[in-house]
Amino acid sequence: MTEDKFYEQLYSIKDQIKFGESFHANIKNFKGIVVAGMGGSGVSGRIFSEMYEDLPVIVVDSYNLPKFVNNEYFFIAVSYSGNTEETLSVVGEAKRRGVTVNAITSGGALEKIADNLIKIPSGLQPREAIGYLLMPLINTFIPVTYEEKQRMVNLIEELEKGRSPLWQLAQKIVDSKKIPYILSWEPFRALSYRFKTQFNENSKMFALNHTLSEQNHNELVPQLVNRGMADKFIFIVIEGDSSSRNSRRLEIMERKADSPFIHLKAKGSTHMERLFYLLHYIDILTVEVGLRLSYNPEDVKVLEKLKEDLSKIE
Amino acid sequence: MTEDKFYEQLYSIKDQIKFGESFHANIKNFKGIVVAGMGGSGVSGRIFSEMYEDLPVIVVDSYNLPKFVNNEYFFIAVSYSGNTEETLSVVGEAKRRGVTVNAITSGGALEKIADNLIKIPSGLQPREAIGYLLMPLINTFIPVTYEEKQRMVNLIEELEKGRSPLWQLAQKIVDSKKIPYILSWEPFRALSYRFKTQFNENSKMFALNHTLSEQNHNELVPQLVNRGMADKFIFIVIEGDSSSRNSRRLEIMERKADSPFIHLKAKGSTHMERLFYLLHYIDILTVEVGLRLSYNPEDVKVLEKLKEDLSKIE
Repeated sequence: MTEDKFYEQLYSIKDQIKFGESFHANIKNFKGIVVAGMGGSGVSGRIFSEMYEDLPVIVVDSYNLPKFVNNEYFFIAVSYSGNTEETLSVVGEAKRRGVTVNAITSGGALEKIADNLIKIPSGLQPREAIGYLLMPLINTFIPVTYEEKQRMVNLIEELEKGRSPLWQLAQKIVDSKKIPYILSWEPFRALSYRFKTQFNENSKMFALNHTLSEQNHNELVPQLVNRGMADKFIFIVIEGDSSSRNSRRLEIMERKADSPFIHLKAKGSTHMERLFYLLHYIDILTVEVGLRLSYNPEDVKVLEKLKEDLSKIE
Repeated sequence: MTEDKFYEQLYSIKDQIKFGESFHANIKNFKGIVVAGMGGSGVSGRIFSEMYEDLPVIVVDSYNLPKFVNNEYFFIAVSYSGNTEETLSVVGEAKRRGVTVNAITSGGALEKIADNLIKIPSGLQPREAIGYLLMPLINTFIPVTYEEKQRMVNLIEELEKGRSPLWQLAQKIVDSKKIPYILSWEPFRALSYRFKTQFNENSKMFALNHTLSEQNHNELVPQLVNRGMADKFIFIVIEGDSSSRNSRRLEIMERKADSPFIHLKAKGSTHMERLFYLLHYIDILTVEVGLRLSYNPEDVKVLEKLKEDLSKIE
C-alpha cells in the first residue's frame, strides 16, 4: 500500500464525522449505559465514557458482562467486524438476561443478533473507522450541531495542510530509539489509550499511557530514582484542562526530569473539536513513525492470525 | 531499615486481614458505589470494583467527581494519609452536592470532614496498609467469615515459610535487566495494576500491566513483529479463571513468543484466599527485587517531595 493510500484512509475521518446515525434512547428510563467492545472498536466506548457524565458509562472489555447489568441499562455492543469473540460472548449473556442489544457494526454475527443496529461501512481496519464507531454514541447522547461537525472537518483540513511539524516529531521519536510514554489528564484520559494502541498497530511499537496524577503517585519513584531505566522512555504529554492542578504537576515533573517532554496541544474551540483534531494528529504521527521504521502501518496480519488460531480451539 | 524490618511490615497483613470494621450501608437504597482514591490507597477501590458486581462500582482517580454522582450513590473516600489533594478535591465536590462522605483513613483533613469514618492505624506507607484499606470495603459489601479470614492468614504463613522460590524469581527478574510486563484476566485484572505499582515503589522499576485479551487486540503487533522491542520486556502472567478463553489465548501467545512467560499461580480455595495470597506474594517479590537492585524498598522520598512542592503552588 502506498503512502498516499494511507493518507486517503486517514482523511476519510472527515466523512466519518458527518455520519449522522443515532439510537433512539429515552435515556431517562435507564440507570446507566454499558458499552462493550475490544481494541480499536472498544476505544470508542472509552472515549465516550469520558465525554458523557449524565449517567454512569460502564466500558466492558472482556468476555463477561458484569452481574448488575439488566434491562435497566442501555446496552451497546461495538465491534467493527461484528465477529469479536469477547464482544459476542458479552452480547450472548445480555440476550440471556433480556437486555436489548444495540449494536454498532459493519456486519458479522453481531449484525444478525442485534435488536437495534447501526450499520457502518465495511472495508476499513477497525482503528481507521473511529469516527463511524464513535459518532453514533455522540449523536445519541451528546448535543452536536452540523456547524460544529463542519468546524471539526475544517480543523482536520488545516492539520493536513500543516503536516510537516508532525514529520519532524515522528522522526524525533524514531531517532530517540525509546519507548513512548503518553501522559494526559481530563478531558483526554481515554485519548492517551488510543494513542498507545495506535503506536502498537501503526508504528509496531510498544507504548505506555497513564493519567498524570495517578502516575505521580507511584511511578515518579522509578522515574526520578532509577534514571537509567527512566531513560528508556520518551515522554509525550497530551495537555488537558489547563485550569487543572495537573498543569502545576507537569511543571514540577518537568523540572525534575532529565529531558523535556514532548507536548501535544489541541486546536479547536470546543471539546469535540479538540478531540477530533487530536485523534487525527495521533493517526498521522503514528503512521509516520511506522513508515520511518520501515513498517507497513496498515499491516496487522498477526492479529488476524491469532483470531484464526483461536477459532480452531473451542 | 533492615531486611527483617521490611518483612515485619509485610507480615502485618495478617493483622490487617482480621480488621473487622465496616460501614452501615443499606445498599438496596443506592444506585451504585463510588470509591475515590489515588495510588496505594486507591488501588483498594480498583480491587474491590472487580470483586463486587451487585451494583456499578465507579473508581475515581482524579480531582473530579463525575457529574452524575449524587446522594443516590454510596460514596467512599480512601486516603491513607487523609491529605491526598485529588481525593480531598473530590470529597469537597461530594459535600457540595449533599453526598454523604464515608471515609477510610488514618487521619489528616479527611478524618475531620468525613460524615462516617473508619479510622485505620497510622505509621505505615499506604501500600503497606492494603489490608486496612481494602477490608472495610469487603466487610461492608461481601460476605466473609472469620474462618475464611483464618484460612487467608494460614496461606500467608505457608507462603512465608516457603519463600525461597520467590528469591529465585526476584533474581531472575533482576538478571533479565528487562521491564516487567504483567498480564492477567478476571478475577485478577486489578491485581495486575497493584503488581505494577509495587514494582514502581518497592523495586524502583517501571512496569506495564494489561488484561491479556485487550492486550491481544493491539499490542500483539509489536510483540510479534518488532522482536527487538519486545525483547525489552519480561512477561509475567497472573493466571485468572482457568475456564476462561484467556487460558487458550495464553497458550497460543506463548507458542508464538520468543521466550517463556513467568507464571504466577494462586493458592487458596476461595477467590478471597487466592487474592490475598497473591497480594502478599507480589509484596515479597517486589521488595526482593528492590533489595537485589540495592534500593531501599521502603524509600519513596521523591513522592513526599512532590507533595511538598505541590503544596507550595496554590
